[in-house]
Amino acid sequence: MIFEKIFEKMTDIISLSKEDKEYIKTIVTFRKVDRKDFLLKQNEIEEYYYFVISGCLRTYIIDSKGVEKVIQFSPQGWWIADNESLIFHTRTKFNIEAVFDSEVFMLSRSNMINSVKRCPELRSYYAESVERSLVFLRNRLNEILNMTAKQRYLNFCEKFSNLVEAVPQKYIASYIGVTPEFFSTMKKKLRENGVKK
Amino acid sequence: MIFEKIFEKMTDIISLSKEDKEYIKTIVTFRKVDRKDFLLKQNEIEEYYYFVISGCLRTYIIDSKGVEKVIQFSPQGWWIADNESLIFHTRTKFNIEAVFDSEVFMLSRSNMINSVKRCPELRSYYAESVERSLVFLRNRLNEILNMTAKQRYLNFCEKFSNLVEAVPQKYIASYIGVTPEFFSTMKKKLRENGVKK
Repeated sequence: MIFEKIFEKMTDIISLSKEDKEYIKTIVTFRKVDRKDFLLKQNEIEEYYYFVISGCLRTYIIDSKGVEKVIQFSPQGWWIADNESLIFHTRTKFNIEAVFDSEVFMLSRSNMINSVKRCPELRSYYAESVERSLVFLRNRLNEILNMTAKQRYLNFCEKFSNLVEAVPQKYIASYIGVTPEFFSTMKKKLRENGVKK
Repeated sequence: MIFEKIFEKMTDIISLSKEDKEYIKTIVTFRKVDRKDFLLKQNEIEEYYYFVISGCLRTYIIDSKGVEKVIQFSPQGWWIADNESLIFHTRTKFNIEAVFDSEVFMLSRSNMINSVKRCPELRSYYAESVERSLVFLRNRLNEILNMTAKQRYLNFCEKFSNLVEAVPQKYIASYIGVTPEFFSTMKKKLRENGVKK
């Protein structure tokens, strides 16, 4: 059952009673997102946190030269949102798009805030999820500032092994911060050296 | 009184009773950190969240060439920690050092977790603080991926106006991702163009 996907993630961190689960079903909204459809577009105001049930989302911005730059991927089991736009009601800089046909649960910020009154355990789950996102972003920043493109690619392959072949290669190139041409040459060299297939 | 610094930040987000405040005083530990002293060193395991009462901390890593790379600054009123090391008990990649003589409150992860049982409102405060850190890091990543060094410097001046003159310039150069020489030339040009003093 589709709700099991989110309950599984939650019960990794907190315990949920039968009543909690029934309650959670009432505060999230299921949505199918076709490949290349948007959950959030630049200049909109974010209203929801998204939990990825299946598929994969990517968050990107369009730079001053009109080039898309991938900030992060959110595969199955991950949460994503523009927290700045959600908290401060500012217009977002980001786009959140489905990389393939995907399914998500949408949780509005007001439902999130109300839910912790009804089910205080959820606050621990949300806090832990946000803290894990913080860990991911600090590591990503560290990769960008301190690692070579090759190291960043090998890290990507390790962290997102399911995405390496499935995601358009130009998105991965953008994520690791190189041009598609450089990326293609780099992968060829890695194959020649037997590092990657 | 020194505790007012942390209560002020907390009451921006939650309400605290007199009893809550007395309780919070028992779970944080005051510490003075001299300039250039460390709160966390690479390969240690992080035990605390740090709240900056006065002064400023910087988080940096040392890259494979032995060069320090500044990940972030944490001025007065900010929290900082290596959340990855705290949550997963892994050895940290980061160094957290005082830029000038500073004062912090230390909050252990176990005290943080226990405190929300005693004072559930605190969970909202912690969650909101972590979410704001997430906003900061996503914006920082966006700056690094999509902006020029000049834009990054001007953003730094806007966000951290108190630090611009006070912090060693080589740290700011590292933060915006350029060499001290490039940084010096860039600032000279900005002054000549009347953008900055």
